[in-house]
Amino acid sequence: MMDSLELIKPISKSSPTRIVLLVIDGLGGLPNPQTGKTELETANIPNLDRLAAEGVCGLIDPVSPGITPGSAPGHLALFGYDPVGYNIGRGALEAIGIDFDLQREDVAARGNFCTVNEDGLITDRRAGRISTEKCVELSQLLDGLEIEGVKLSVRPVKEHRFITVFRGEGLASGVGDSDPQQTGLVPREIVHLSPPAERMADIANRFIAQAKAILGKHYPANMILLRGFSKRPQISTMTDIYKLKAAAIAAYPMYRGLAKLVGMEILETGTTIEDEFETLKQHYNDYDFFFVHIKQADSAGEDGDFERKVRIIEQVDNALPRLTSIKPDVIVVTADHSTPALLRGHSWHPVPVLLHSRWCRPDGTDRFSESACLLGGLGRFPAAQVMSLAMANALKLDKFGA
Amino acid sequence: MMDSLELIKPISKSSPTRIVLLVIDGLGGLPNPQTGKTELETANIPNLDRLAAEGVCGLIDPVSPGITPGSAPGHLALFGYDPVGYNIGRGALEAIGIDFDLQREDVAARGNFCTVNEDGLITDRRAGRISTEKCVELSQLLDGLEIEGVKLSVRPVKEHRFITVFRGEGLASGVGDSDPQQTGLVPREIVHLSPPAERMADIANRFIAQAKAILGKHYPANMILLRGFSKRPQISTMTDIYKLKAAAIAAYPMYRGLAKLVGMEILETGTTIEDEFETLKQHYNDYDFFFVHIKQADSAGEDGDFERKVRIIEQVDNALPRLTSIKPDVIVVTADHSTPALLRGHSWHPVPVLLHSRWCRPDGTDRFSESACLLGGLGRFPAAQVMSLAMANALKLDKFGA
Repeated sequence: MMDSLELIKPISKSSPTRIVLLVIDGLGGLPNPQTGKTELETANIPNLDRLAAEGVCGLIDPVSPGITPGSAPGHLALFGYDPVGYNIGRGALEAIGIDFDLQREDVAARGNFCTVNEDGLITDRRAGRISTEKCVELSQLLDGLEIEGVKLSVRPVKEHRFITVFRGEGLASGVGDSDPQQTGLVPREIVHLSPPAERMADIANRFIAQAKAILGKHYPANMILLRGFSKRPQISTMTDIYKLKAAAIAAYPMYRGLAKLVGMEILETGTTIEDEFETLKQHYNDYDFFFVHIKQADSAGEDGDFERKVRIIEQVDNALPRLTSIKPDVIVVTADHSTPALLRGHSWHPVPVLLHSRWCRPDGTDRFSESACLLGGLGRFPAAQVMSLAMANALKLDKFGA
Repeated sequence: MMDSLELIKPISKSSPTRIVLLVIDGLGGLPNPQTGKTELETANIPNLDRLAAEGVCGLIDPVSPGITPGSAPGHLALFGYDPVGYNIGRGALEAIGIDFDLQREDVAARGNFCTVNEDGLITDRRAGRISTEKCVELSQLLDGLEIEGVKLSVRPVKEHRFITVFRGEGLASGVGDSDPQQTGLVPREIVHLSPPAERMADIANRFIAQAKAILGKHYPANMILLRGFSKRPQISTMTDIYKLKAAAIAAYPMYRGLAKLVGMEILETGTTIEDEFETLKQHYNDYDFFFVHIKQADSAGEDGDFERKVRIIEQVDNALPRLTSIKPDVIVVTADHSTPALLRGHSWHPVPVLLHSRWCRPDGTDRFSESACLLGGLGRFPAAQVMSLAMANALKLDKFGA
């Protein structure tokens, strides 16, 4: 798949056409045992059905059959990047996830506030899952330290989770975790896994010692554990690869972070589906690629709320004329993964995809659903090939070979 | 695909769910010209049809489109291993095929009893296809030699075929064949292809000289030819990769050998389909993965016996309630390759696959057949991905990436 970008890059060209990639997070589902219909099949979605009838449908595998992707690989694949080759380290991903402006040389680590007893043994790796408010307060106590010229940022994530970002010269990310992943042990000393990371290990250990001193009286959150030291992956931007001026419209920070990572500009938007489509309309003349991310379907799936997921899909459909009325040259509607309400989480099931353009070869599909997409003209294919199809349909790809 | 195991291994986890992989060897077929129906389409198989209706179907390519696999690549793919990357040398494969307990440092070679004339020229590479009884007798004459501390095992296979296994220190397998693959020539001297294999070549040549002396009076089997010197491939076990406690139920030695190679335990069983299902039932609580191998369909296909293959598929279906009544969490029914009776041998045609689990997304398929599987929800995919799907449906895979 790294090869596939090398194939696309030299034949990509700029043109006045515009692509909208609408990601309804967690769209794919499983049938309700009572009705035999999935969330998408249950929803009344005349506008999406019309797009499906005019366009061409299929099913995509975000990573490969059977593999349940996290949000990062799911989205990287949709942007055309090999989701396995570009697997992002935990620390960097969490930093991106809270929209922290991670620089190329920064090293990020995921942190837990935890509890240790008088002997220094870990008794709770999550410090009793302290509240997010408490996490904000404690993160501020640790934020802004400087150790041997390295500046530390500590930012709260949620409950006991935080991130630490180390910014300074000559830091390598190849160090082990301090988190032993079980209770009854002392936190590990951070060790360097290769000589260039010796300084990083040293600074991380000093930070942990200082953090322990600072947190001493904040039982149960009287210690920290760090893991997943990693840098922002070096990824060619979508502008570099596809010659696109790309913009992202996403209400949730994680998806803005992922879009930023591949070089998209982030557009300010509101929290509703209508807000996002309105933002698209306002900026439509300023970019030629738009990633529009709708989070709510995934959240409903994760909550196991089949009916709410159905309603959200219907809301998207209802708001869709705001998008279709501006007549994008290419519209792709799909998701980063399935989130069946029955499974209450991401799943491995293939994801419906719909491509609408003047130049697609329409199939017999007149309904946007898992079962209709199974018989669609795009067949079943890896999600990382969606971008080539979108680019082709926007007439933004030259011929390969003479 | 080597990468695919690297992808699966870190996200695999143990759980109480159980997977049964039922391999009906050579299942796929070609239509009888009189009826237009394949063996599977002709068979009356209400139980398999019900599994297909409740589950999800598709077609797999054991290696890739157009490639006819042998039994080893066909099975390695079903176990999740890249069938090209893990190609097994001829000698090792024949040894595994007769269930010889090949150790890691052993070197195995495939042998032929052959006929040479007074000038030492080969006149028949198969010694007139001597009987298997004769092969057993002659193998015993050669078995148990020791040359410079290397112990030799010679075991009959069938007719003129035998194996030799060299066990001793410092043996490398990189040597040429003695079999020139044509008559009218003298057998080749075994040459080493790299310096570490010099000792192996020397010992092999001494063995051939001794064998010639021993066989002198046993015309037409008065000489041997050796080829395919190879070691047992070093393959991570299924326990190592998938965290499975895996068992194999197979009446034929080749399939027990292949299962042992990937770390399965071999369960004693009888020779009938019913015996095998009964063995599954007895041991169901002791393992969480079962490979059940049914040989007879392939044999009927190889004999060109369309009707017998139909009857065997019907026998499997008839016995199936013994398997389904124990309600495995995931049932996969498929084959290692097609063996159309019309072709009297293995073929390249894609193989029907059926997956039954609580968490599959059912398709419209209500018949287990090549034509129904073509429209199935699993689509068409490489056989080496079957295990990821089985693992996913057994909820034995964590999310990939965050």
